[in-house]
Parts: sequence; C-alpha cells; structure tokens
Amino acid sequence: MTRSAVLDRATALGSLEGLETLSIGRLAQELRLSKGGVIGHFGSKEQLQVAAVEAAVLRFREEVWDRAAAERPGLPRLRALMESWVAYLERRVFPGGCFLTAAAIEFDDRPGPVKDAIAGAWRRWLDVIEREVGEAQVRGDLTTDRAPSLMTFQLHAYVSEANSALQLFGDPAVLGAARTAIARLLVKAA
Amino acid sequence: MTRSAVLDRATALGSLEGLETLSIGRLAQELRLSKGGVIGHFGSKEQLQVAAVEAAVLRFREEVWDRAAAERPGLPRLRALMESWVAYLERRVFPGGCFLTAAAIEFDDRPGPVKDAIAGAWRRWLDVIEREVGEAQVRGDLTTDRAPSLMTFQLHAYVSEANSALQLFGDPAVLGAARTAIARLLVKAA
Repeated sequence: MTRSAVLDRATALGSLEGLETLSIGRLAQELRLSKGGVIGHFGSKEQLQVAAVEAAVLRFREEVWDRAAAERPGLPRLRALMESWVAYLERRVFPGGCFLTAAAIEFDDRPGPVKDAIAGAWRRWLDVIEREVGEAQVRGDLTTDRAPSLMTFQLHAYVSEANSALQLFGDPAVLGAARTAIARLLVKAA
Repeated sequence: MTRSAVLDRATALGSLEGLETLSIGRLAQELRLSKGGVIGHFGSKEQLQVAAVEAAVLRFREEVWDRAAAERPGLPRLRALMESWVAYLERRVFPGGCFLTAAAIEFDDRPGPVKDAIAGAWRRWLDVIEREVGEAQVRGDLTTDRAPSLMTFQLHAYVSEANSALQLFGDPAVLGAARTAIARLLVKAA
C-alpha cells in the first residue's frame, strides 16, 4: 500500500472523527496493514497528522484552486474560486465536511506542528482570496466601498458557515444561501 | 462539590480539548474527586457530555441573550444581540472559544443525543436571530432587500468566522471585522 493511499484514508477519517482520535492502530486496522507498516510511512502520530493536513491541503488545491485558476485574474477568477469552493462542499470531497475547518477547530488550542500546518494553510487561502479581491478592485471590476480584508472576511465566513450548517443539519439549502450572499457581495463596479 | 461546579470545569475543558476526549477519569482528576463522585452526578460519559452542552447553552443565554433582551424588539435588540455575541467572544467566556461551535464541528458526524442537543441549541439561536430580523423588517427599521433567513445566515457567519479566526490566529482584529460586517448589513431602512 502506498503512502498516498494511507493518507487518503487518514484525511477521510480525520474529516469524520477528528485528527486527534486518529491513531496509527486504528488506521492500520482499517487498511489491513500492520502498525509497523503505517509507522514506516510516518514515524509518529504527530507526523501522520501533519502529513494528513498536507494531503488535505493538496486535495483542496486540486479541487478548488485548480478548477478556477485559468480564469482571468480579478472578478472572474474570484467568482470562480468561490463557486469552486462551494461546489467542493457540495460534492462532499471529504465525507465529514471540510477537513481543514474541522482540524482548525480541533487544534486551535493545541500548539505545535499540526496547528502550525493548519494555520499556515488557512492563512495562505485567505491571502489568495484577498489578493484576488484587490486585483478585482484595481482593475475596476469590483466596487471599492470596502477593504479587501473585510471582503475576504465576509467571503470566507459565508463558505465556512455553509460547511458547518451542512454538516450539522444536512440541509443543502445552506449552499444556496452561501451562493446568494457571495453574489450579492461581489457586485460589479458601476 | 456541586454538579454545577463539575459542569463549569467540563465546559471549560470541552471548549479547549473537545467533548469527546472529556473523560470522567480526567474530570475527576482535575477536580480531585473520585470517579464515583463524578459518575454519581451524571451516570455515563454521554450523559456528562449532554449535561455539558446544556450548561454551555445556559451560560450562552446568560452572557448573550440576557444582556440584550431588554432592548426594544426589532433593530435595536438585533444590534444589541449581535454586539453581545461578539463581546462574549472578546471576553473569552470559554477559554477555548465558543463551546457550541467547537462541539458542533466535533459531533456533526456522531449521531446521538449529544449531537441532537448541539443541533437543537444552534437551531434555536438561528431562530432567535431570524425572528428579530423579521421583526425589524416588519417595523420598517431594517431594509427588506433580503430575506430574514439570508440575513440570519450572514450574521451568524460573521460571528462564527470571528470565533474561528480568533482561536486560530489569536488576533482580536477579527472581532472588528465582524462588527463592521454586521453594522454594514444592519442598515436602517431609508
């Protein structure tokens, strides 16, 4: 079994049950490997957790960023990125909802390399959105009545809220609310 | 030691480390009680978890709803509720951030009485906000250009986002972003 197959299962389990309860023993049992076979790939539980975060980030990049990257920078790409992010939730890429959101809540009070990996990925994603908002404003596509950081806060909030509510209530209507809120925020400059 | 003192510690620990890792043994050790002393209050781990959710909801009601309830229904009370909610995060009422947000992410894939208690509390809070938005619109205080459910989604998203970002990055600037986003949404009808 390859390292990436182990990580696929680790990120799926992590999104469902949390990263902290993800033990090497549990993973070995699920994958019908020996504990030694799993440890050989990762070394320690913490290294497995960091590797799972990195694998989830890579998956997020493929599922969200790569599907929007070819759009024209500025408003078109910003809209495509947000739609791509909502669609990623809709497709349930991770069975337990957005892996990084769950991991962030779980590790925010546990300093160390796992939290650092999560916080770094979250920050980079906020930076991607904010850069695109700024670009859209500079190009005159997007209204400049609010700072890029505020707009980024709002956009990120809508999709995160949709993720939480979808997971908790199972009602996909919340994805529509997120799409509407995003569309109403990303108004073309007059 | 009283039941409520045990629950105080249980909700604090739950907000920091999660509800699932909250064991009766751990709680007994922290509070210098016997395991039997803790079990006598709650019976099982699941009953302890449900009791912790109920205690957190009661605390939330005291810290957020009670501080705004006397305001005039409609826009004044809606604004007071939202400010009260942001201020509750600012005061770090729970050391690990909003207890219910963390518990919701943790239990969304674990059906049962703990998830039901969390989802019920979350739903009631959304209903409180939505009722106040509707009241503000009926009274002509608040612009009617979007449905109460959409506005509720947005308001809830802003404060939840502030909670997550505050916990992950420790930067209180995000509370300012939430306040600005709320103020810009709750525009008085012309």
